[in-house]
Amino acid sequence: MTIPTILIFDLLGVFVFALSGALAAARKDMDIFGYVVLALLPAIGGGTVRDLILNTSVFWIDQSIYVVVAAIAGVLVFFFSVRVGQRYNVLKWADALGLSLFCVMGASKAYAMTSDPVIAVTLGVVTAVVGGILRDVVCNEIPLILKREIYAIAAITGSTVYCIASALALPELWSLFIGGVCAFTVRALAIIYHWSLPTGR
Amino acid sequence: MTIPTILIFDLLGVFVFALSGALAAARKDMDIFGYVVLALLPAIGGGTVRDLILNTSVFWIDQSIYVVVAAIAGVLVFFFSVRVGQRYNVLKWADALGLSLFCVMGASKAYAMTSDPVIAVTLGVVTAVVGGILRDVVCNEIPLILKREIYAIAAITGSTVYCIASALALPELWSLFIGGVCAFTVRALAIIYHWSLPTGR
Amino acid sequence: MTIPTILIFDLLGVFVFALSGALAAARKDMDIFGYVVLALLPAIGGGTVRDLILNTSVFWIDQSIYVVVAAIAGVLVFFFSVRVGQRYNVLKWADALGLSLFCVMGASKAYAMTSDPVIAVTLGVVTAVVGGILRDVVCNEIPLILKREIYAIAAITGSTVYCIASALALPELWSLFIGGVCAFTVRALAIIYHWSLPTGR
Repeated sequence: MTIPTILIFDLLGVFVFALSGALAAARKDMDIFGYVVLALLPAIGGGTVRDLILNTSVFWIDQSIYVVVAAIAGVLVFFFSVRVGQRYNVLKWADALGLSLFCVMGASKAYAMTSDPVIAVTLGVVTAVVGGILRDVVCNEIPLILKREIYAIAAITGSTVYCIASALALPELWSLFIGGVCAFTVRALAIIYHWSLPTGR
Repeated sequence: MTIPTILIFDLLGVFVFALSGALAAARKDMDIFGYVVLALLPAIGGGTVRDLILNTSVFWIDQSIYVVVAAIAGVLVFFFSVRVGQRYNVLKWADALGLSLFCVMGASKAYAMTSDPVIAVTLGVVTAVVGGILRDVVCNEIPLILKREIYAIAAITGSTVYCIASALALPELWSLFIGGVCAFTVRALAIIYHWSLPTGR
Repeated sequence: MTIPTILIFDLLGVFVFALSGALAAARKDMDIFGYVVLALLPAIGGGTVRDLILNTSVFWIDQSIYVVVAAIAGVLVFFFSVRVGQRYNVLKWADALGLSLFCVMGASKAYAMTSDPVIAVTLGVVTAVVGGILRDVVCNEIPLILKREIYAIAAITGSTVYCIASALALPELWSLFIGGVCAFTVRALAIIYHWSLPTGR
């Protein structure tokens, strides 16, 4: 896996997360601007918060392609939302791919900058889940991933495995790959077997 | 138009946006602190998020006059909300003025720092609309501008025209003025003719 | 009071605020990840926003102990929420302690960096109350402190007194102590006598 390959996967993750946001806009009966805003929130929200916390340059400021791709996803869903909605199962799996990529890439950036595995795992999870939380908050709903889904656990697993691999001095691309596969596996098992976490009561 | 003139317009925009927030606090039956917080969110929220994303000094840190003006608007509405509410039409037009100023000044700052028109338009819109979104989210409502209003479109128009004018090497004040007039015109037509965007369905 | 003493008090404040968040997660019937997220928001949210606005390093990036302590509070409440809930009165007083510490420490950091008392008071209040606002927004509720509680007023009092003491060139620890005691006194009186602010109507 080379760096351009990572960019392609990263943009794929952005696109898929943007679709999830725009579909939420469809459910709330928004206008086209609402679709674009709701597409942007999950697509670039998590990475933005991660970069702000790391006090580094926000990733999409130097590469506006991320904003363009997410906005296009929003516009596409506005005009073809019925068809996209029917592809719900495809979306769920693509979202699992995005989650896996986002958590290891977030953990990687944070680990490189702080060398602290607690921060790396925290910001890996932030990258993967904060965008979705922002989407749900703006839609006036309690974020689903805080209530039932095995989703954050997959991000925690992926980020943690990445950190262990990286601490063992594995090559960066191997660490990303192994962490990402672990995150995807946890999320895939949860989707296939309908796993959910118990609540506090 | 000179720089002090811009500061006066800018503070006027802050004051008007603060009134809109404090009136939302009145509808939610808040206490005086709630009025002040709800005044601050739309007045300085959009510019704050813009500056955080640009990784630059937040504009009101060096000029606390912005905070003071917004807080005063909150206190005024707390004591005179009935009368302010009756001026709803005046407010709507003042808000259109604020929107026009905020979008071109946000686009200007972002364009100067990144030279990327996509980022400039994005952050022009962020400056003009994110504060209002924060106000609505804290009030536990789905932001109206995501659902019907021709509001963000006005900000997109103004930011885009500013960027074109600036790319054509027009003097900065002319670019700001032309962009602002275009934003105001779109918003004004939408108010007068009750234009609204179609939703996705 | 020495610097290590401050760290202990600060961590106590974080722990208590984290408990308040996790108890909100319990009321919303969340899973264990939801408890941890809701614990983190009030515990480190206010200080994070303060540091972002000051354009300085976020405090917990260099000291992940804050994240660990808040996460532990979330996990503890998940397994023992019934018992923690019964200690509601103890919590209310511990929360008052956290509020008092957070507002003076936020004001202190902002005053040292900007020398502007308006910014210092603003960010003292931000440190003390924004985390709780984030907690309530994610729980899809209008923040209670914007509606009735004498809570922000305590933070404003503490931050203001700190600034006055600091401007009078009192030693830093004395200024922190006097400001914190004033904040605590206001909040304590409000708890004991059930004071609440009038709303706008």
